[in-house]
Amino acid sequence: MNARLLLTCIVFYCSIANAQEIQYIDARTLNLYGKAHSGGAHYHRVDTARYSDMPRSVKRLSTQASGLCIAFKTNSREIHARWSTPITRTLRNLPAVASHGLDLYIRRDGQWVFAGAAVPHDSVSTRRIVGNMAEGEKECLLFLPLYAELFNLEIGVQPGSTLESLSIPWKGKVVIYGSSITQGASASRPGMSYPSILSRHLGYEFVNLGFSGSGKMEESVSRMIADIKEVDLFILDCAANPSPQQIEERTESFVKYIRQHHPNVPILMIASVVREGSNFDSNVREMVTGQNSNFEKAYKRLLASGVKNLHFIKGDELLGRDHEGTIDGTHPNDLGFDRMVKVIEPRVRKLLRK
Amino acid sequence: MNARLLLTCIVFYCSIANAQEIQYIDARTLNLYGKAHSGGAHYHRVDTARYSDMPRSVKRLSTQASGLCIAFKTNSREIHARWSTPITRTLRNLPAVASHGLDLYIRRDGQWVFAGAAVPHDSVSTRRIVGNMAEGEKECLLFLPLYAELFNLEIGVQPGSTLESLSIPWKGKVVIYGSSITQGASASRPGMSYPSILSRHLGYEFVNLGFSGSGKMEESVSRMIADIKEVDLFILDCAANPSPQQIEERTESFVKYIRQHHPNVPILMIASVVREGSNFDSNVREMVTGQNSNFEKAYKRLLASGVKNLHFIKGDELLGRDHEGTIDGTHPNDLGFDRMVKVIEPRVRKLLRK
Repeated sequence: MNARLLLTCIVFYCSIANAQEIQYIDARTLNLYGKAHSGGAHYHRVDTARYSDMPRSVKRLSTQASGLCIAFKTNSREIHARWSTPITRTLRNLPAVASHGLDLYIRRDGQWVFAGAAVPHDSVSTRRIVGNMAEGEKECLLFLPLYAELFNLEIGVQPGSTLESLSIPWKGKVVIYGSSITQGASASRPGMSYPSILSRHLGYEFVNLGFSGSGKMEESVSRMIADIKEVDLFILDCAANPSPQQIEERTESFVKYIRQHHPNVPILMIASVVREGSNFDSNVREMVTGQNSNFEKAYKRLLASGVKNLHFIKGDELLGRDHEGTIDGTHPNDLGFDRMVKVIEPRVRKLLRK
Repeated sequence: MNARLLLTCIVFYCSIANAQEIQYIDARTLNLYGKAHSGGAHYHRVDTARYSDMPRSVKRLSTQASGLCIAFKTNSREIHARWSTPITRTLRNLPAVASHGLDLYIRRDGQWVFAGAAVPHDSVSTRRIVGNMAEGEKECLLFLPLYAELFNLEIGVQPGSTLESLSIPWKGKVVIYGSSITQGASASRPGMSYPSILSRHLGYEFVNLGFSGSGKMEESVSRMIADIKEVDLFILDCAANPSPQQIEERTESFVKYIRQHHPNVPILMIASVVREGSNFDSNVREMVTGQNSNFEKAYKRLLASGVKNLHFIKGDELLGRDHEGTIDGTHPNDLGFDRMVKVIEPRVRKLLRK
């Protein structure tokens, strides 16, 4: 708490020093989308006190802001941000702008168009995200850091310009649960995680429940997921982290628990991407084959047991065929995510149309 | 020099401690491709002592290993690397595995297939890049760090296995000169810079002369480039760094100097990618439009003055049309590089066929 207070003071000091030029407002006054439930710390995806029986790693990762986005409108010709995150060494297979940065989209002709990324300096960063824009009101969507807790965020605009919360007319809500890949490793910037791409393409709010290395279908996690209200689709992209045996043991009860609480909502199971590390490594190949095979078997058993409106996507073609779709043999790069979206989006669109 | 000595000692110590398990050999005994000329420090792209009149930033960036690759063959079932680079804060818009890591490809059915990336720990790193491979000899190509000087590199294999230098039967050599984008920002890993992708696709050795922020067509640099021997194609992707005025002033003499020393070699000029930061920022848009317009005008003046075998690619379509092809509005992500390759490769293939 002391570290946070100190950070807040530093930010406040900078605020005064720069006050003549740019007006900042606390982003907590603006609409925030992508949280699993209301309550808990503002920029935590999940209220970890309410679901205190979840595994420790899932609770820690729940505090990271992946998939959250802030919506606002402004007539300012430039947009700034000032934000703070923990001082941690960034990941070696994810650029800092993705893990700790911000990513701004502005609506143009009904589409969300990339406007600028805010590359972090350090634990406290100040950036002009975009400038020299045309006059007139802009509708903005700001994606938050994929792999960092966000302590504080202020949006800055030119003095005398407007800055108001924006209500997005989402068509509905999709909940996606999974691994580091779901959380967004290794997109180039926050808006490029594949759930966020799907969200922009489909016009649905996405709740990103990707937990790096920890998407293992524990009972406590199924309770947290089943508690989410007004869901139009559940996507389970959670075959990458559990062992083949855990997949065999856990998948059916996990899916059934969600089904029990959401009798009519479609559930889409997605097999793991075929790790490109397995191109030559037979152990990796064996592991992923075991995971995906057991995930698909569980899907078939669930169908056979009478679970309705349950769907499956195989993993083989998710990253294309040239073996170039990952940063490290495991985590998709933007090319890999683009290919995943090309496979997954039409299936999801069909399920949401029903 | 002392820091380097210390690093070497640390590496040597680790070498002894681990000697029972993995046999390391100094990669300087293996074939190295991608250097501009022979001579100079082993892993420097350019001999900076020989071209001491180049701008200071170009000389500094010449020491970074972008585009260099090591070729070897081994019957080991696993491949390790131990390497050292400067202790610097990594870039915020490039993952550390791209700037300071290694990227291994293995030949399968005549194609270079991704085998594994070596993610750096720190300034000295040891990694198993791939393991559990099938028996038999593998032909390997290891791409070196995009944005770091490489002080030392050792390749490790299982005791008793072979490890020999490999001669790649390149069809010829392409020299590519440009900016940070040419140097590889912001690929996800070293093999994913667009010149390296082109190299694998086309079977030509590529000399990467991308100098981040410093590809500004100085006279001293043209002398260094014109000195390169046995070139089949020059690619000039250097409209991103100079001001529109510098482009107007420098392009013709730069191209003519190369033409004078290589009368029959095709020269391909590529306009700058349309910065996605310009989607809403009119100043960025104006700057890039000015750069590309002046680059194309210079091309037309060169043609009019009788320069033969000179070619041009416009920048508009290089990153596709969805505005998602960059990490930060300027530097292509893997999706952007993939799209650049799709535009550039057919043109290059045609020029090399002549």
